[in-house]
This record gives sequence, C-alpha cells and structure tokens, in this order.
Amino acid sequence: MTKDKISIAFQDLQTEICNSLEKLDGKSKFLTDPWSRKDGGGGVTRVIQSGALIEKGGVNFSAVHGKTPEKILTALSLSPSDFFATGVSIVIHPISPMVPIIHMNVRYFEMANGTYWFGGGIDLTPHYINKEDAKTFHTHLKKACDKFDNTYYPKFKKWADDYFYLKHRKETRGIGGIFFDHLKATDSISKETLFDFVLETGKTFIPAYTSAVEKNRDKEYGQKEIEWQRLRRGRYVEFNLIWDKGTKFGLDTDGRTEAILMSLPNYANWIYDYQPEKGSKEAETQKMLKKDIDWLIN
Amino acid sequence: MTKDKISIAFQDLQTEICNSLEKLDGKSKFLTDPWSRKDGGGGVTRVIQSGALIEKGGVNFSAVHGKTPEKILTALSLSPSDFFATGVSIVIHPISPMVPIIHMNVRYFEMANGTYWFGGGIDLTPHYINKEDAKTFHTHLKKACDKFDNTYYPKFKKWADDYFYLKHRKETRGIGGIFFDHLKATDSISKETLFDFVLETGKTFIPAYTSAVEKNRDKEYGQKEIEWQRLRRGRYVEFNLIWDKGTKFGLDTDGRTEAILMSLPNYANWIYDYQPEKGSKEAETQKMLKKDIDWLIN
Repeated sequence: MTKDKISIAFQDLQTEICNSLEKLDGKSKFLTDPWSRKDGGGGVTRVIQSGALIEKGGVNFSAVHGKTPEKILTALSLSPSDFFATGVSIVIHPISPMVPIIHMNVRYFEMANGTYWFGGGIDLTPHYINKEDAKTFHTHLKKACDKFDNTYYPKFKKWADDYFYLKHRKETRGIGGIFFDHLKATDSISKETLFDFVLETGKTFIPAYTSAVEKNRDKEYGQKEIEWQRLRRGRYVEFNLIWDKGTKFGLDTDGRTEAILMSLPNYANWIYDYQPEKGSKEAETQKMLKKDIDWLIN
Repeated sequence: MTKDKISIAFQDLQTEICNSLEKLDGKSKFLTDPWSRKDGGGGVTRVIQSGALIEKGGVNFSAVHGKTPEKILTALSLSPSDFFATGVSIVIHPISPMVPIIHMNVRYFEMANGTYWFGGGIDLTPHYINKEDAKTFHTHLKKACDKFDNTYYPKFKKWADDYFYLKHRKETRGIGGIFFDHLKATDSISKETLFDFVLETGKTFIPAYTSAVEKNRDKEYGQKEIEWQRLRRGRYVEFNLIWDKGTKFGLDTDGRTEAILMSLPNYANWIYDYQPEKGSKEAETQKMLKKDIDWLIN
C-alpha cells in the first residue's frame, strides 16, 4: 500500500465523481485546473458552475509533499520530518434551496519517518431539513461503515456531530454524517482494509447525494426560500473560515487559495440577529441543528 | 485614570458617533440592543440598517470582566488573573459601491495585577480606490497622530498595513490607516495622554468618514459595480473570520456572537478564480491592494 497507489486511487475517485456529477447536473461540465506547489507536489482543481442543478461545485484532488510546516509540527507534536499528503475534497452548492449542500473528503497523510494516517468524512447540509431524507442519507453511510466494522457508524457519526459544529452559534452545520481522522492499522484491521473503507466512503458520495438530489430537485421555491438558503450559506462560510481544520491546514501549508476556498458559495447573506418566524419551516430546520439526533429512528 | 472613567468615555464616544452617523445617513436610526455577559459585564450593540447611505452598520460598546480565559492567558503568556476589557468597535457597510467600508476600534485592557494597555485603529476599504480620497483619509489620521507624537503616524500606518492583510491572498484589505496595540505609559507619555490619543483616534472617525462619504455618495453606479462590491465584501468576510484578532478574542471569550459578527455585510459573493478585466477600474483597485504605499505623496 504505497503512497503512490493511494494517490492514484484518489485521482481515479475524483474522475469518477466528476463524471457522475456531470450526469446528475445534466447541463454543465467541469473545468480542469491543474496546479503545482512551489515546495513540492500539486493537484487538480475541478470546478463546475452555472449548471442545471449545481450553482458552484468543486472537486479537488491534491498530492503534496515537502518539509512539514512548523505550525503543523507544533499542532501535532511531531519532530521535523518531510510529509506527504493526498486527498479528495468536495463541496457542492446547488441552485435550489430545496436541495442540500454536500461535502465529502478523504485524505491520507504520511511522514518520512513512517507515521501515517487516514481521515475522511461526508456530511449533508440541507437548507430545509427533512427527517425522511436525513434517514436515507444516514442509512447510506451506515451501510458503508457496517461493511467494515459495526462500531464505525456510531463512532464516526458522533465524531461528525462534534466536528461539523459552529461553537459560536451553538448549532450544527447540518444533519452531520460521518467523520474520522488519524486511522491507522491495528491488530484487527490492516492498512489495506482501512484504505478500502476510506475509498468506500468516497464511493458512497454519489449514491448518497443522488438520493438527496432526486427527491428534491423538482420542488418549487420562491424568494423566501432563496433568502433562507443564503443565510444558511452564511453559516457555511462561518464554519469553513472559523472552524474547519482542512481549510486551516491548506492556508497554513501555503496551499492554493482558490482551490481551498472553492468551498465558499457564490452568494451568501447575513442579517443582524435574524430569527426565523415561529412555527415556520425555517424555524423547524433551526430546531434540528443539534448534536446527537438519531436520524435512523425518525 | 480609572477603568470606569475609560469605559464611560467610550460609551459617550459610541453615542456621539451614532448621532453623527444618523445625520450622515439622513434616513435610518440606530437600534439599541443592551446585553449582559454571563461571566461579568456586558455591552450595548447599536445597529443601523437599510438607511439612505448605510446598508448595515454596527457600533458596539462593551465593558466585560471576569476570569481571564485560558486561551488568552496562553496567547499572551500571562498568569491567571481577572481581566477587564472595554472598547468601541465599528464597521459600516454602505449601500453604494462608490462609498468605502470603514472600520474603527478603540480598546482598553486591564488585568487585576495592574497590567494594562490601550489599543485601537481605523482603516478604510474602498471598493474602488481613489488616490485623492486615500490622501484625504490618511491626512486626517496623520493630523490626529501628530498632535501627540510625530513618530506615531508612520509607525501605526505600517502596523495597519501589516495587520489588515489577507496573507492567503497576499493583498491588503483596503488602503489601511493606523493600528496600534499594547500601548502603556512611559517616561515620555502618561496614561492620561495616551488615553487622550486613543479618544482622538475615536473622534477622528466622523470627519474622516464624512470626507470619504460626501465625495462619493452621489456617484452613479450599476450592476457591474454592485457585483465588484460584493466580491470585495467576500474578502472582507475572509479577513474578519480568518485573521481578525478582535473577532477571535470575542469568540474565545464567549462574547455575544451577533455583536461580534455584525461586521459581516448583508450580501457577499465569491467567484472561483475571479480576475478583473485588464485595464478596468476594478483591476486598477486590485493593483493598489499592497502594503507600504505612501498615500500622502500621491
């Protein structure tokens, strides 16, 4: 399980997902923007815009290496050693407020001294939360997890609740999903099997998002729903710029800013001290932006 | 020079500035939102919206105290001691893209063990940079500084260039201004005089912004200018959420989120890898988003 094998599989995953998203969109195609990093490695940013379904979507692949930045060494208590990092990162902002925003990321990190780990996650941010759709989404994730270990889904679901959380708002970003980090081989799981699980997470993206899209893409909406969508996107911007560790890591390692910030929506709004009208569907969604909801039993 | 005297003067400054901004706007009035902090103290958030000039503006006063949060102690290498912090913080987002965004902040921090310091700053973010207006703005600031010490303006102008800087974009937020922090009495300046300087900074806000407003408020603009304004506001959001220490301090001390984030505009946009058209006025502005420009000689 060499790092090259992993990064090639990640690049294939990027291609596969872009092809599927183009089909799902039905109108726009991805632009391909390859880039190289001054201090080693590079990536391919792929962006889709102004589609029939997708307003702005990015599927980023990168495989970078070099001297580990001081900040990272300090944060992880590591001694100086070259690093290698590869991953795929996706954020899709749909046009319709009735269709959820989705994010997926899989990543592999390796130090020259042999330390390595996998990380990843997938989470859904519906502008309007629907319990049935939430159950469908979490069922996709549970199935993917259960193929490997029955303890994964509950553990990684909780991890996602804690990770995709806006502490300053005391609200979750959406309905969560799964999140995991620092996974290494143990007596009970090999590096190969771990990698299969990470790839499974990546491959779950398309069926999970397709379900969420197909059930909602034809729903009608008006100005009120668009305004709410833009406020929810404002929260998405807050999460990514204040709390997201991937964004911080990218900016700290002098990554490609446009590739890192492609997760931001085209349009986002803020209103001072906004409160949705009592009893409205916006207020219903607001109430469900909480940790520890078991979406499978709803 | 007790902390009460300082916080009363700051609250008076807030009132004075709000009255002047209401006159400048000519249509809307400030809402007044008093709040108290669970662990000690509180503040008064004042917000103006949907004016003739101002789309969204906040003038926040706070005077908070209590146990110093662990994060702050670590960041400043301080031993545990109660803290007191008071300040006024302003951000104004005008409706017209031809009128600049402005920010001003004055603050005083005191520890129970007697350590104290003043900080502050004022900076201008024109959506379209005009050298003559930039000179006028910086002349206001230089005059305020020169009343106290001829070394202040060059020193604090450079500090502002370094502070109001988007490292991930390698661009300044706007045309800068002045910024200072950790100012204490020395053999050559008393705490009283230092406080007079801080208040002078606060009082410079109105004439400096009035000049910037009056010269531009009647200029015509269209959709193209609005789109550029919203992209520049996107950068303003990035600065405040990624780099601004005041925002971080507020969120770390469990401050009032709505008061802290009132600095965000109503509408902000992002476009992947946007480049202004060569030779356009937007490209001209982009070129001037650099440190170390001497605006006084232009």
